[in-house]
Parts: sequence; structure tokens; C-alpha cells
Amino acid sequence: MSLNIDQDRLLSDIETLSSFSEADPPAVTRIVFTPADLKARAWMKTRCEEAGLTVRHDAVGNTFARWNGSDPAAPVVGTGSHIDAIPNAGKYDGVVGVLGGLEAIRTLRQSGFRPEHSIELLIFTSEEPTRFGIGCIGSRLLSGTMSPDAARKLTDNDGATLDEVRHRACFGGELEQVKLPTGYYKAFIELHIEQGPLLGRQKIPLGIVTKIAAPASLRVLIEGSGGHAGGVLMPDRRDALCAAAELILAIESAARGSGAIDTVATVGICDVFPGAVNSIPSRVRLSVDIRDTDLQRRDVVMRALESTSAAVAAKRQVSIQTELLNADAPADCAPAIIDALSQSCRQLNLNFLSMVSRAYHDSLFIARISPVAMLFIPCRNGYSHRPDEYAHPDDIARGTLVLAETLAALAG
Amino acid sequence: MSLNIDQDRLLSDIETLSSFSEADPPAVTRIVFTPADLKARAWMKTRCEEAGLTVRHDAVGNTFARWNGSDPAAPVVGTGSHIDAIPNAGKYDGVVGVLGGLEAIRTLRQSGFRPEHSIELLIFTSEEPTRFGIGCIGSRLLSGTMSPDAARKLTDNDGATLDEVRHRACFGGELEQVKLPTGYYKAFIELHIEQGPLLGRQKIPLGIVTKIAAPASLRVLIEGSGGHAGGVLMPDRRDALCAAAELILAIESAARGSGAIDTVATVGICDVFPGAVNSIPSRVRLSVDIRDTDLQRRDVVMRALESTSAAVAAKRQVSIQTELLNADAPADCAPAIIDALSQSCRQLNLNFLSMVSRAYHDSLFIARISPVAMLFIPCRNGYSHRPDEYAHPDDIARGTLVLAETLAALAG
Repeated sequence: MSLNIDQDRLLSDIETLSSFSEADPPAVTRIVFTPADLKARAWMKTRCEEAGLTVRHDAVGNTFARWNGSDPAAPVVGTGSHIDAIPNAGKYDGVVGVLGGLEAIRTLRQSGFRPEHSIELLIFTSEEPTRFGIGCIGSRLLSGTMSPDAARKLTDNDGATLDEVRHRACFGGELEQVKLPTGYYKAFIELHIEQGPLLGRQKIPLGIVTKIAAPASLRVLIEGSGGHAGGVLMPDRRDALCAAAELILAIESAARGSGAIDTVATVGICDVFPGAVNSIPSRVRLSVDIRDTDLQRRDVVMRALESTSAAVAAKRQVSIQTELLNADAPADCAPAIIDALSQSCRQLNLNFLSMVSRAYHDSLFIARISPVAMLFIPCRNGYSHRPDEYAHPDDIARGTLVLAETLAALAG
Repeated sequence: MSLNIDQDRLLSDIETLSSFSEADPPAVTRIVFTPADLKARAWMKTRCEEAGLTVRHDAVGNTFARWNGSDPAAPVVGTGSHIDAIPNAGKYDGVVGVLGGLEAIRTLRQSGFRPEHSIELLIFTSEEPTRFGIGCIGSRLLSGTMSPDAARKLTDNDGATLDEVRHRACFGGELEQVKLPTGYYKAFIELHIEQGPLLGRQKIPLGIVTKIAAPASLRVLIEGSGGHAGGVLMPDRRDALCAAAELILAIESAARGSGAIDTVATVGICDVFPGAVNSIPSRVRLSVDIRDTDLQRRDVVMRALESTSAAVAAKRQVSIQTELLNADAPADCAPAIIDALSQSCRQLNLNFLSMVSRAYHDSLFIARISPVAMLFIPCRNGYSHRPDEYAHPDDIARGTLVLAETLAALAG
């Protein structure tokens, strides 16, 4: 096929979507079911309908925009990603996959192509864990990885349940209806910025993902003993922040020492109580995020956290409780879709890198019910989850073109 | 003299004062010029007037309750402390010195004693640094340690200046009028809970302070580079929280290794930005509090912070900026008042310990313009700045009795 991506339209859509935000530009904050997210969803729905697609949503707000194929009963060829954004994020994470997916479909429609299999754009609910402490809520429910009962137990920082919040956002219906039937998809492809530095460093415009790393998320609560910063003698202290500092460094050291570049570990939250200049910290809450494509290596870091916690608790006379929030399994991408993506790249004379995704994505969960693959484009310096996240327009257009070609090849 | 402290009245006053709070009991939160503080001040004023004292306040809200002596022109014998409380504090820090001071005066008046020197109870404004980032604002201004210009530059976390806040609280007038004239006091005595474990451990009911340690307060800003917790490879990270963890441990280690029990150092605040589960910390702000009765030892810890900062900044490619907020000098207590306190203890057959105050107090600053001393009573386990701070009623009454006897001896 010879397709022409409308790069201006696509970039203009990305700019518009970035304006639905609670942060000052260039930062984007768009947390699931907040007014910014609901405005973005409404705009997306209109944009999909203008493209001639039929839009529906499920009980948790996952949104499907469908282009019916000539055989509407045939398994669907899907593409999509998410539009929610963590506090102070950038414009491209998730959005490139959603608006690139929409642009790929628009381009195919305008080219005169008529698919046999229906093609659907899917916008996942709450890929980011900001609000409910766990990410990929939409895809976990779609794939049956999370039960409706478990989802109903989720609460946000204000104590509101997922059910309350989705109903306030006018997403009714039963969570039991969210799970997709087996065989729903023929294939699912997620276009995404790399969120890492490898494509940029090697000046390769595209990455075809063979494996998606999976995170283990933990919450660590350290309880020591507070007191006056002047009054309590150093040998008598049970300072929760000093204990936390040892854990933070031990986690970092274990990830660095894993022997593989794919092991990463991050302490992103360190909340200190009471948090006063002249009070010894009595309580600290840490969030720990450990990722790898290899479960055994990931477990080595988790065991390092465990053994350091035990040693620090004993030495410092503090209590350390570790709660495992989730420990998902990595996923392999489907060879048939990897082949189709590779074939599209070759036909377009585009170089690509076979790579793993160290970030996790909704595709990690969709992989449990469908063949999936991911297509990466470079982002500057590998920056993501920050306001200066940037993907070059040519890279976005190239990724969208390869996606369009591949959707066409798979939808027949 | 033979004085009878009304222990029930004193304890009832302590309970009532603890009810002016923004925290749930037993915790007390009473931050300067908040509604809780203003209610407590109004109640204190009434209580002092009921005791027959004449109450005035200065432009920054320091409150003086005066019992005129037979020679009203003679230098004043002062006592007092503070009633503001950090978030989630207890009932006794400062309060014992204010309500014990009031009870001492009430007891003396009821005993028929008539002083030659006027006796004044002084309630200092903002001993705690919670709101404006620096403690002892009232006593710094009274002693001329802080200039009115410097005080006018103080802002709270909402950006309101001290001037705006004090005017809203109806404390008008010029800050230039706050400084006390030279020779105002003949003596100043502050009764206080120890905020440390030594009296309790040795089962000694009273401590006479010979020297007050002084804090150096610093703010440390660490700026690294953020990004996606999955995407950025470990060797590429410039994680501000990992850098902070190294500093926290280095500060602790330097204080523990100073060779003296009087050296203490605390990191009480660790604010992480952006503070999300799946984002690498790009920025961390620490507060550091280092105290000693010996300036050279304190400086050793400060130099350790400096050298570690330089090493960590170089190794981790982060920027570390250290701002010295204040570095006050320690103060010696006046031998004449120490003698008077010791004499009272001996007359009452009460054992006492000569000791240093590792916490700092308004007396540290009043010492620059007046002879001062401090009298400590035990607090359980040395706990302070926490809801379970506790002083035994008998200890409070004993301290108040020694204070009353000593005020009488000094006021002649």
C-alpha cells in the first residue's frame, strides 16, 4: 500500500489533547476520572466519531472506536493505548498510541482500504497507578487479570471507591461485563514512545518489542520512634528516615548489581511523618517499583529488599512491613505480529531494533487473552513521565505509518 | 518560705490549654497565629488577668503578664516559655513553663509575699519553626538577635509575610519596638520539660541547666533527573532520592561519631518531587538540624555534610545546594541564678542534676540581654514533640515550687 499520514492533523491532535490537563504547559497532569480526563475522553469520542468510527465504552470506561470489517464476526484487529497521565508528565506517553492509532485508521479509510476484520481503537482506563495505587486497571479487567471483586475494593487517596468514582464519571454497568471474550482479538498492537534511551542512542527510528517487562510494586512502612530533634540522644534514636535511607540504597544497589541492563528499581515515594524540621521521623512510607523481563532477576532484587529490611529492622529497632501490591509476570509478544511489523518496516525501508520494553503497558495484560506486539518510537534522551518528554514529529509519523501498514496487513 | 502549689488548678489549666488544638487528642497542633493559637492566647490573657496580673503584648505578639513590685523601676524578674506547638506534638513542651510560671506567681501572691522587683510571666511568640522556618522569633526580636528587617522578610508556606500574619492576628505596632532595653531583666528563668531521657533514667526530679546547646538549621536541595521508573536504565539515572539517602546516612554517622553525647543531628523533612510510584525522583528537599553545646563539634558535622554533598554530587551527577538558615551560638546560664535554683532545691530537700540543654529554647536568645537559667523536669522516656509526651503531675508541681521559691528569692 502507499499511505500518506497526515502529520499536521496528528500533531495538532496531540497538542489539543495536551490542553486537557491540570498542570501548566508543557507539563500534563490528567488523572483518571478527574475533570481533565473526562474532558479529554469527550473530545476523543468526538474525534473518533468524526473519523466515522462507532464508539462504545465499558463499565470501567475503556473506550472502543470501531471500524466494521466486511466480516463483522471475524476476530478484531486492535490498536490503542492510554490517555491518562501522572502528575507533571509529558504529552506523548500513551497519547502517541491513541492518536497515532486513530490517525492510522483515518489514513487507511481515506486510502480506500476496506478491511475484512474489524479494526478497533482501544483507549484503556487508568494505565497509570496515580489514583488507585495500581496501574492498568482497564486492561487488567479486560483480560480477567483482576477480578471485579478486587477492582471494587480499590480506593483512591480520598477513600472513594472505584465504583463511586466511575459512577460519578457516568460509567455505569457491571464490572463483570468488562472482560473480553476469548478470541475477541486476532491481534493487538500498541504504538508507544520507548521511554528509554536505546533507539535515540543508536539512531534507529523504530523498535519492535519482543518481550514486555513486568513490575513488582511494593509499599514499605517503616515505624520507628519520634521525638525532639534536640532531646533524643543519637544512640537512643529509632529514626524511621535513616532506616528508609538504608533501604533506598540497598534497592538501588541490588538492581545495579543484577548483571542485566533490564533490571531497574525505583523508590518514587518517600513520605515522612511528622515531617517537621525539629522532629525525628517516626514513620516513613516508601513505594518500591522493581522491573525486569526476567522473573528470577526481579526476585533477586525483591529478596535483597527483604533481607535488608530484616537487618535494618533488627539493627535500628524499627518495624518494617512490606506489602506486595502486585507482581505481574512478563509477557512475550506474538511472533506473527512481530513478523508483520518487521515486514512493514522492510517494505518501507525503515531500520528497526528488536528490543524489550522495560516499561510496562496495557499490552502486558492484553497478552493474556490475545496475541500482542508493541511498536516503539524514540523519545528524546529517553525522557518520559516528565514535562520535557518529547518525540519528534517525523518519528511519530513513521511509527503511525508502520502501524497503519501492519493493521492493514493483519485485517486483510 | 512555705508555699503550696495548687496542683489541681495547674493540671486543669494544662488540660484546658491542650484543648486549643488542630489535632485530635492526645496530639496537640497549635501553630503560631492560627485560630487554635489565637484562642489559646485569649484564654491565657484571661487567666493571667484573673490572677491579678497586668497583661500587655508587643508588636510580634510576645505577651507579658506583670505583677508590679514595690520598686516598679527595678529590673524585672522574668519567667516564661511558649505555648505554640508543632504538628502532632504533646501537651507539655513550653506549656509547663508558661502555666507553671503562672501557678508560681499565683502561689506567691496567695502566700502574702510582696516582691520588690516586679515579676513578669512572658509568653514567647513562635518558639517553634513550623510556620516561618525559623524558631524563637519572639525571643530573637526581644534580644535583638534578629533585626526587624530580617523578621519582615519571613514568609510562611502560603507566601504570607510575618507582617501580614501578625496584623491579621491583630498584633499591630512596629517591630522596632519589640527589642527590650538593656538591663530590663534582673534574671530570667525558664521552667521546661527536659525533652531528653537523662533525668528519668537517673530518677532525679530536677535538672538545673548550665549551658544551652544551639542548633544549626540547613535546607538542602538536591536536583537530579527524573523519568520513567521502567524506562531509564540504572547507570543513566541521576536519582535525587538515592543521593538524599546518602546524605541522610552521612549526617547521622557524623553526629554519632562526634565523640560527645551532646551532638545530635536530624533530617526531619524529606520532600520528594514528583513523588509518584513510577517516576524517578528528580528533586528532593531535606531539612537538617544539627545541635551541640560545643560549636567546634557542631561544625565537624556541618563539614561532613558539606564534603559528602560534594562527593555525592560528583558521583551521581546531581546538584546539591545547601542553605544555612541559622547557626546560633550556645549560651551559658548565669551562675547567680544557677546558685539561687540550687539553693531552693536544697532548702526543699530536692535532688537535682546539673546538665546541659540539648534542645534550644527562647532562653538561648534572652541570654544575650539578661542573666538566664533553666529548670528541667523529667518527661517520660525523654519523649517530646509527639502526642505521648508526658510529665508526671508531681514533677510538674515540684518544678513549679522550685521556680516559685527562686522567683521570690530573686525578686526580694
